[in-house]
Amino acid sequence: MIPQWWLDVLVEGLSGHDLRRWPDEVGSPGEIEYVITLKPEPNSLSNYPNLRAIFSTAAGIDHFIFDKTLPKGVPICRFSHPELASRMSEYILLNILRFHRQLPAYQEQQKAKLWKPLQQKAAQDVTVGVMGIGNLGLDSAQKLLSVGFNVRGWSRTPKIAQGIECFHGQAQLEGFLAGADYLACFLPLTPETKGILNARAFSSLPQGAVIINVGRGACIVEKDLLDGLSTGSIGAAVLDVFETEPLPPEHPFWVHPNILITPHISTVTHPRMLVPNIQDNIARIESGRPPTNVVDATRGY
Amino acid sequence: MIPQWWLDVLVEGLSGHDLRRWPDEVGSPGEIEYVITLKPEPNSLSNYPNLRAIFSTAAGIDHFIFDKTLPKGVPICRFSHPELASRMSEYILLNILRFHRQLPAYQEQQKAKLWKPLQQKAAQDVTVGVMGIGNLGLDSAQKLLSVGFNVRGWSRTPKIAQGIECFHGQAQLEGFLAGADYLACFLPLTPETKGILNARAFSSLPQGAVIINVGRGACIVEKDLLDGLSTGSIGAAVLDVFETEPLPPEHPFWVHPNILITPHISTVTHPRMLVPNIQDNIARIESGRPPTNVVDATRGY
Repeated sequence: MIPQWWLDVLVEGLSGHDLRRWPDEVGSPGEIEYVITLKPEPNSLSNYPNLRAIFSTAAGIDHFIFDKTLPKGVPICRFSHPELASRMSEYILLNILRFHRQLPAYQEQQKAKLWKPLQQKAAQDVTVGVMGIGNLGLDSAQKLLSVGFNVRGWSRTPKIAQGIECFHGQAQLEGFLAGADYLACFLPLTPETKGILNARAFSSLPQGAVIINVGRGACIVEKDLLDGLSTGSIGAAVLDVFETEPLPPEHPFWVHPNILITPHISTVTHPRMLVPNIQDNIARIESGRPPTNVVDATRGY
Repeated sequence: MIPQWWLDVLVEGLSGHDLRRWPDEVGSPGEIEYVITLKPEPNSLSNYPNLRAIFSTAAGIDHFIFDKTLPKGVPICRFSHPELASRMSEYILLNILRFHRQLPAYQEQQKAKLWKPLQQKAAQDVTVGVMGIGNLGLDSAQKLLSVGFNVRGWSRTPKIAQGIECFHGQAQLEGFLAGADYLACFLPLTPETKGILNARAFSSLPQGAVIINVGRGACIVEKDLLDGLSTGSIGAAVLDVFETEPLPPEHPFWVHPNILITPHISTVTHPRMLVPNIQDNIARIESGRPPTNVVDATRGY
């Protein structure tokens, strides 16, 4: 259910357009040219004969791209915005710096009224591995670099990014993981990435590595993560995404001392960000140009 | 007491020089030309007739500059190094992002197994006030800017720094504080800065502001901080420095739910950083040039 304040921002921002709220205000399906959606109900998009584009309000679109009833030939546009990336980078910096600067240990020491400086590694002696070098992963990688960390990246296909040691494909995955003291996963969910972070991948990481998942929950094999944490081969995990969301109350992650859980808030779209993006893409389509950020259905993101 | 591994690094790095450990290895005082020290014992520097410079191993030198027995006319060099600044910036980013991204609230929610996204402010709608625009304050300010926060600065004398709204002097202090959602204090301890963060200053801050002190403990009136926290006019405090260090076990700060305590580790000199700095300053002095980072005794830092 879209909150009213969200709608208010869209209505004001897109005031040149006839905005109709699903399902009550849709009216005649033939009049609908564009759909703005986060996660459409199955089948709900199959009956608009004049649909020209579907605008996702988020970067991740796996939850509906696999819907077989989606109209063929209608472009689906992922959402991309610098602020979406900068909010994500805040989350990544926060959670890496929290372990790097040993905040959990200092908080325990405070409880014991213990004044004890700990040996501190320099950022230049620490490497962060970023899986997924898209808009979001790249912004985080650049900010991690500017703070002083070494950064390496892994992606499906070869990429080049200044200052970042780039790895790609299944063949280079193990080598990539072997040097990642922190592993930040930005991967979309596709048949190739489902369960990519499993026991075998974890065994390639340096002992005690910290895992941060802001991609999709199903990229991690949850049982293997729990095993890695229990043996200490993985030091800690920060999880913002899960196979099932909301994370069910009985899930063991909630009470694990070395798992930090956040409710899918690592980055969040503000409707103010959507407006220029949607306006621009509509203008492109109306003038016969291709819209931006179109999802490639064959690769799945 | 200097740890042995520290000495080992200095001995190796300064191997061209005759390094003597105080007090046992000093030998004839007339042979001592340079002193490397963090916090010399009172009177311990008064008897070296041929002393050419004193090299502090830290940025802050208040704990010995007020020693009346220090030899007159011998330059005292503060320590400055890019890594000292970048480590400090890690601490500042971490502690501001921790509150900005509501981590304490999410950690409480995890304890209650509560999946509840919270409204999140954009960094562009948040202002960080930096008190003290020296090497350390400036590096933090620039990194805060690059993450997306608004940054304003306050210093004793006028300064200009790109992207930072600069205030200076007592007359502009209240106006500076009025716009600081976060206040990061980097001030050295001088007669002018002692107790500068008092009830009056706190009352100028926005309601619920978060205070981070990495300058000197005595810049804050501790009782006024506790009062501000108890009324909620101050939201939280992150303290790395204290009037008395180590912070005594009976001090009320230890158990305050809205105070995070770290044991003076916001930035720490690694002896590897000292070596080129000391070598360079010795070379300057030996060739008749002035050393860098000389403390101005009249301003006290």
